[in-house]
Amino acid sequence: MQTSPRTQILAEPGRLDFFIQRTFAAPRALVFRAFTEKRLLEQWMLHPDFPMTIEQAEYRSGGAYRFLLPGPDGSRVAMFGVIHEVCAPERIIQTSEYAGLPEKGLVALQKYVFESLSEHNTRVTIHTLCPSADYRDGMIAAGMEPALNQQHQQLDILLANQS
Amino acid sequence: MQTSPRTQILAEPGRLDFFIQRTFAAPRALVFRAFTEKRLLEQWMLHPDFPMTIEQAEYRSGGAYRFLLPGPDGSRVAMFGVIHEVCAPERIIQTSEYAGLPEKGLVALQKYVFESLSEHNTRVTIHTLCPSADYRDGMIAAGMEPALNQQHQQLDILLANQS
Repeated sequence: MQTSPRTQILAEPGRLDFFIQRTFAAPRALVFRAFTEKRLLEQWMLHPDFPMTIEQAEYRSGGAYRFLLPGPDGSRVAMFGVIHEVCAPERIIQTSEYAGLPEKGLVALQKYVFESLSEHNTRVTIHTLCPSADYRDGMIAAGMEPALNQQHQQLDILLANQS
Repeated sequence: MQTSPRTQILAEPGRLDFFIQRTFAAPRALVFRAFTEKRLLEQWMLHPDFPMTIEQAEYRSGGAYRFLLPGPDGSRVAMFGVIHEVCAPERIIQTSEYAGLPEKGLVALQKYVFESLSEHNTRVTIHTLCPSADYRDGMIAAGMEPALNQQHQQLDILLANQS
């Protein structure tokens, strides 16, 4: 599957944070549901090259999520966190930890903001705070951009079918 | 009560994070308990000039805390968050939001690290990631240092009595 480079990653050198941004051609309420309902997440986050499992997707204030990602030697490695706030259809604030790192306790904070640009266009901005600049740069260098573009292109298709 | 300025706040200009550090003359297991047990928290976090209420102190991975702080006009304003991880007696990772801010959804991430310097000395380092440098500087300017020093001096007394 060809990916379009529409998802932008904005990371100023030396800072602890970065931004991911993309506009989807769908109403905000629908885009928000696609980021918070397990049944919909499974339709756009997974693809044949990336056999992820969504073990838990409890998107509510005080909830939690847990994804199992493909790790070395066919193992599965958890990406997980707790949900500080779900304020529908405006924002999600959650922690994020990747269990595959050699050092434990390296946790990021992610804030998803959903903005209505028009009745049929929604901008999603994800602001991530990282425990260090090295952690941030390593995360981005690990192939974040092509993976996000592929997922978001799948989300475009899902949203087009739901509208 | 006189406060001793032993609690250090380290905030490099322009960054999103800052560090709070203090060494307590007590074994790590005891210091860790003082930061995670409601009954002990009530003995050092509260004082007559600062009538706070600890409404919830559920320190476990996936738990939550909720403190009520004195606000304007005798009101109470919540400081609250969810607990990403409690790894006893080494670290606590939690979110933190102050409900009294005009803008909603401004959340920080706090990592408490407890290090044994010797059998009877424990260094506590709190690394806080803030959503902006302004948020960080505002938090520190709001009287954080004297308040922490007063609380930590009360904790010194509690720890001396428990040892």
